[in-house]
Amino acid sequence: MQETDFVSGFARGLKVIEAFGETTPRLAIADVAKATGLDRATARRCLLTLAELGYADYDGKFFVLTPKILRLGHAYLSATPLPHIVQPFLDKLAEEVHQSASASVLDGTEVVYIARASQKRVMSINLMPGSRLPAYCASMGRVLLAAMPDNESLALLKQSNLKSFTPRTLTDPIRLMEELARVREQGFAVIDQELELGLCSIAVPLENDRGRVVAAINIGAPAASVPAAEMADRYLEPLKSVARLLKSLLR
Amino acid sequence: MQETDFVSGFARGLKVIEAFGETTPRLAIADVAKATGLDRATARRCLLTLAELGYADYDGKFFVLTPKILRLGHAYLSATPLPHIVQPFLDKLAEEVHQSASASVLDGTEVVYIARASQKRVMSINLMPGSRLPAYCASMGRVLLAAMPDNESLALLKQSNLKSFTPRTLTDPIRLMEELARVREQGFAVIDQELELGLCSIAVPLENDRGRVVAAINIGAPAASVPAAEMADRYLEPLKSVARLLKSLLR
Repeated sequence: MQETDFVSGFARGLKVIEAFGETTPRLAIADVAKATGLDRATARRCLLTLAELGYADYDGKFFVLTPKILRLGHAYLSATPLPHIVQPFLDKLAEEVHQSASASVLDGTEVVYIARASQKRVMSINLMPGSRLPAYCASMGRVLLAAMPDNESLALLKQSNLKSFTPRTLTDPIRLMEELARVREQGFAVIDQELELGLCSIAVPLENDRGRVVAAINIGAPAASVPAAEMADRYLEPLKSVARLLKSLLR
Repeated sequence: MQETDFVSGFARGLKVIEAFGETTPRLAIADVAKATGLDRATARRCLLTLAELGYADYDGKFFVLTPKILRLGHAYLSATPLPHIVQPFLDKLAEEVHQSASASVLDGTEVVYIARASQKRVMSINLMPGSRLPAYCASMGRVLLAAMPDNESLALLKQSNLKSFTPRTLTDPIRLMEELARVREQGFAVIDQELELGLCSIAVPLENDRGRVVAAINIGAPAASVPAAEMADRYLEPLKSVARLLKSLLR
């Protein structure tokens, strides 16, 4: 790619959008400059452009994003066949097992939810398509990392911010690599309250018709009602059955 | 705003992202140029920038968006308090009435879903946060349009592409304005299979603590199990009760 094929103003603008988030919903120009590493003048121009186009509101001091921003993420969700194909299977699965079922793909060191069928909420955070979790301590993340060659999964683990969400979170790369080997061999991953106390989940990979892992699906359940040791007994077959049905539909 | 405060490369790039969608998941440079009105060279540079930054994949001919794009929409969903505040109420409501419940806001002539609790799927399309429907024929859209001054709602109706999704769809602006007046007076809107045959829905406005309408919530049900005439009897009180509880939480 040549230098002239790169639109720097576009790249900077996308960085500015990503500066907004759960803990940073309202940002002044200086905040955005700090978060993105852009100089104040550039941050200001990107923010004013967002406001001019209706993607942000500006009260003279702070900028907030508007719902128009959702058009951008929705361009992916509506353009990608995977969420549409998977959603009805998740709906049926969630109803059958009376727990929440989700599908996700890997984006860097994180899993990104692309579809979800929610029964009752078991997590304190609100998961929806577009939500992200660190891959190393999420069941779908383990399955997706296990599907990669060891050198690639190790590289991603090294890029991850391996922190303990609970006393049970695995954060040692060596132990995580051992766990990935086990996940690969058994064909599923169980997470026992590593992301949040009280929450267990089990995930299996989704292969396409050529046997390539393209996503993962999981079932989450409250540890109080389903101990981790019982997750596989209860949910592995329903999950595998969905994966089998989807295999021929995913190209 | 001065000319120099506008980053044209950013504005053009955002247009390129929006060119992707359900019917246009894979786009060549010429397709994007046509869809956006940009010249080929500009479209090409924006697409290559997206690919370089990991927001798109490129096979040498076609571009597709990657899950990284979801970071942009998620910046809004995670940064905005409304979806987080509303979601647990929708979960409870959906469980109580055994139907899907949603919340949305207005973006131009469309309603944008910001939260949703799905029970069984009743529509052929897959609604999720970020999904859009034309406001004029959606129950939440009617409620949000009814909350505006007449001249503004009429202007939005005139900008809308008023088409008949079913034989029941209201498309005459005069009749729609009469319906909005009725919705305003009665405090809710019922849609009887105007968007899709077999689907009814009922919506009420969500007011913030200062009495300003900031969003709408609805319940959708299959017409076969709940005729439109019964929607209000069954679901108006549960919806209003959620609106009352949320009023003091929305600032």
